[in-house]
Amino acid sequence: MSYLELQREVYEANMELQRRNLVVYTWGNVSQIDRNKGVIAIKPSGVAYEAMKPEDMVIVDLENNVVEGRLRPSSDTKTHTHLYRHFDSIGGVTHTHSTYATAWAQTQQAIPCYGTTHADYAYGEIPCTAVMSDEQIERDYEEETGVQITDCFTLRNPAEVPMVIVAGHAPFTWGKNAADAVYHAVILEEIARMAYLTKTLQQTTAPLKQGIVDKHYLRKHGKNAYYGQNKI
Amino acid sequence: MSYLELQREVYEANMELQRRNLVVYTWGNVSQIDRNKGVIAIKPSGVAYEAMKPEDMVIVDLENNVVEGRLRPSSDTKTHTHLYRHFDSIGGVTHTHSTYATAWAQTQQAIPCYGTTHADYAYGEIPCTAVMSDEQIERDYEEETGVQITDCFTLRNPAEVPMVIVAGHAPFTWGKNAADAVYHAVILEEIARMAYLTKTLQQTTAPLKQGIVDKHYLRKHGKNAYYGQNKI
Amino acid sequence: MSYLELQREVYEANMELQRRNLVVYTWGNVSQIDRNKGVIAIKPSGVAYEAMKPEDMVIVDLENNVVEGRLRPSSDTKTHTHLYRHFDSIGGVTHTHSTYATAWAQTQQAIPCYGTTHADYAYGEIPCTAVMSDEQIERDYEEETGVQITDCFTLRNPAEVPMVIVAGHAPFTWGKNAADAVYHAVILEEIARMAYLTKTLQQTTAPLKQGIVDKHYLRKHGKNAYYGQNKI
Amino acid sequence: MSYLELQREVYEANMELQRRNLVVYTWGNVSQIDRNKGVIAIKPSGVAYEAMKPEDMVIVDLENNVVEGRLRPSSDTKTHTHLYRHFDSIGGVTHTHSTYATAWAQTQQAIPCYGTTHADYAYGEIPCTAVMSDEQIERDYEEETGVQITDCFTLRNPAEVPMVIVAGHAPFTWGKNAADAVYHAVILEEIARMAYLTKTLQQTTAPLKQGIVDKHYLRKHGKNAYYGQNKI
Repeated sequence: MSYLELQREVYEANMELQRRNLVVYTWGNVSQIDRNKGVIAIKPSGVAYEAMKPEDMVIVDLENNVVEGRLRPSSDTKTHTHLYRHFDSIGGVTHTHSTYATAWAQTQQAIPCYGTTHADYAYGEIPCTAVMSDEQIERDYEEETGVQITDCFTLRNPAEVPMVIVAGHAPFTWGKNAADAVYHAVILEEIARMAYLTKTLQQTTAPLKQGIVDKHYLRKHGKNAYYGQNKI
Repeated sequence: MSYLELQREVYEANMELQRRNLVVYTWGNVSQIDRNKGVIAIKPSGVAYEAMKPEDMVIVDLENNVVEGRLRPSSDTKTHTHLYRHFDSIGGVTHTHSTYATAWAQTQQAIPCYGTTHADYAYGEIPCTAVMSDEQIERDYEEETGVQITDCFTLRNPAEVPMVIVAGHAPFTWGKNAADAVYHAVILEEIARMAYLTKTLQQTTAPLKQGIVDKHYLRKHGKNAYYGQNKI
Repeated sequence: MSYLELQREVYEANMELQRRNLVVYTWGNVSQIDRNKGVIAIKPSGVAYEAMKPEDMVIVDLENNVVEGRLRPSSDTKTHTHLYRHFDSIGGVTHTHSTYATAWAQTQQAIPCYGTTHADYAYGEIPCTAVMSDEQIERDYEEETGVQITDCFTLRNPAEVPMVIVAGHAPFTWGKNAADAVYHAVILEEIARMAYLTKTLQQTTAPLKQGIVDKHYLRKHGKNAYYGQNKI
Repeated sequence: MSYLELQREVYEANMELQRRNLVVYTWGNVSQIDRNKGVIAIKPSGVAYEAMKPEDMVIVDLENNVVEGRLRPSSDTKTHTHLYRHFDSIGGVTHTHSTYATAWAQTQQAIPCYGTTHADYAYGEIPCTAVMSDEQIERDYEEETGVQITDCFTLRNPAEVPMVIVAGHAPFTWGKNAADAVYHAVILEEIARMAYLTKTLQQTTAPLKQGIVDKHYLRKHGKNAYYGQNKI
């Protein structure tokens, strides 16, 4: 894939964030990796969606050096590259401050798996990272945001839970490419909204029983999946 | 009615789900039965609304065999056919994960009849099914979802309460045809939203007194109804 | 004013209900009175907004007899005429099931005056009627709904509080004509939404102090008003 | 800048309030100052957004005298001029009754800094003014509203917290010009909405730790900022 092809896919995924009402002004950013070339394309920092063009997407290597592009890359670039270096299976990353997912992040609580809507996309609760320590903030804030996230996945498979909320901050999601990462950002916001309504309606609501979590997740994922048209 | 006529009505009803903002991506499905032919038309599994055409609706018999169609039917097909087999009076079924109705389902509580908006469409509370047992999950999940629902209506008339929420899952609604089932899905989401606001505003809110429930339901339904233009 | 002029104004006001997102399907109705002729024009019962035409508005006298029109008038007609008979100063009436105002009605609580947005339009709390007695329900439900409302205004001026919520039911608003009644329905829904957020954020929130209520109401109303362009 | 240029910028900023869904009917107003000429342009009182033209913006001096314009200026004009006289660094002021910010104002509580979305724009909590005393209401209500606001900033820099909520009333925001003040009104509404969700989800949620507040605020503001394209 040429740089321009990569930039076009990342541009389209960023524009989708706005069409799906996940961002206000310049908030949010999406990237996609070309693992053969060892580079990502990512949204430039603080540029209005209306003014962006595909060639404004910045090409950055996995050590955060700008390889091509006139603009400064997203201020969250180091978090993206950290995720690509540690999660081998992912091809795209999205960061938003979508409203309900951010509210959960602000309460510094994981989002419980309350129902099958959640279980269809994430196997178990959506983890919330620890709060960053003062040493981490001073060291390298954006890199350490990545560390916060990967620390949540030492015992969890990022392909099975393609989303996380960063304590006091906001969500990150990922997928097989930029479009898939945005797809998960949309799903996460709806899951977070349903979970908000569920919890405020009844504070003591218990998570969904494990048998149904398994059933729904495996109905859509893995070798015995039977949702959709792919296997016909 | 020809298969194509049935497919067209079901297609239109599915598209209405999207226009009414009840679905995200490929979520949701609507079917309609032709009781003379003993078949239903139902949305295919996991196909984008934007890409669907009337002839993509799958024709399935009441034992869940595909009679006509190139695509796999909705993964919830067995729940639909179960309902058609057990509720003689219904002609259409809708399943969504609409936000507020799903939140109630996640709390595993029936939606109390708090006001006349509710009583105009459903006679008494909207029942919530029991949680599915582990045996049922292993046996035949989608068929058993239907069982969960019909178990709620042994003492209740499905024509008087054309909607249900499945515990930990989401709502199903029905009606005289596919369009009517979607109509009830829209109404249910608004009833669920009002009930959410009512309960969170005042946790102790009592249901509407029976006299007003009777008055409003019977004002719109049955031989003495006087709402609308039908009886002039 | 001719019947057709009256019908046109009432038609426009009904269509505005839909444009302002206050109604679902055929919910809601607006009327306007011609006090010289002793008649009102009102929306027909259960007709889709998309299909309505000005001449479908039904002309009804104050004893609820249809004077002109092919369609059955709104099932709430007797409530409208009751209000016109008892509130001399009003020229238009609106009934909706708008979401937040209806939620307050379902809790059977008045909406406290929590801030200046409320005080700008209504002088003090928005009253909630008593729950209707069984005798009233059996006697003449729609007429008695009007009685419930006027009973709230024996010590209050309907021109100073142009809105009410009917316990377990939904709001009614009024104004100098049909358009003004709809204007108050829009305002009430926003006041009800703000009050919902205020109460759920802090259950113990106190009403606005009387000095500010007076200041804001009188800034917009009465002989010393100085808001808007009218007095220049 | 000519009066007409000033009027055009203020007109555009007022229209943006409506496009961003921050106002109902004629609510809200925006002004901008020309400090060389010692005048502001401000929205006229109670005029519909749809009917407004740039030349309808009223030119007023800092003692609230109309310098040019056929219409009466906003009834909140004295609050605007008070802010311009006391906050030397500001060039534009916006007042709205946006829903979530107004709900916080009605609870008479400051909006805690719960997350980085907030910290990106305001350094610490969004203050809530004291409730106005009876003497102030009688003296000069709109001037005293300005006093309430500036009293909150004796120990705070209005450039670091470009927004406030007035107890029992609604928000005011400011910025380097009218467009920037509206930008902050949009941001405030989203911050207020996230904070509402955060608080109702978990009443005991603690504010964000100071180290992250500092990091995020300084990432976007001051000489070491590295967000956006300005410094490349």
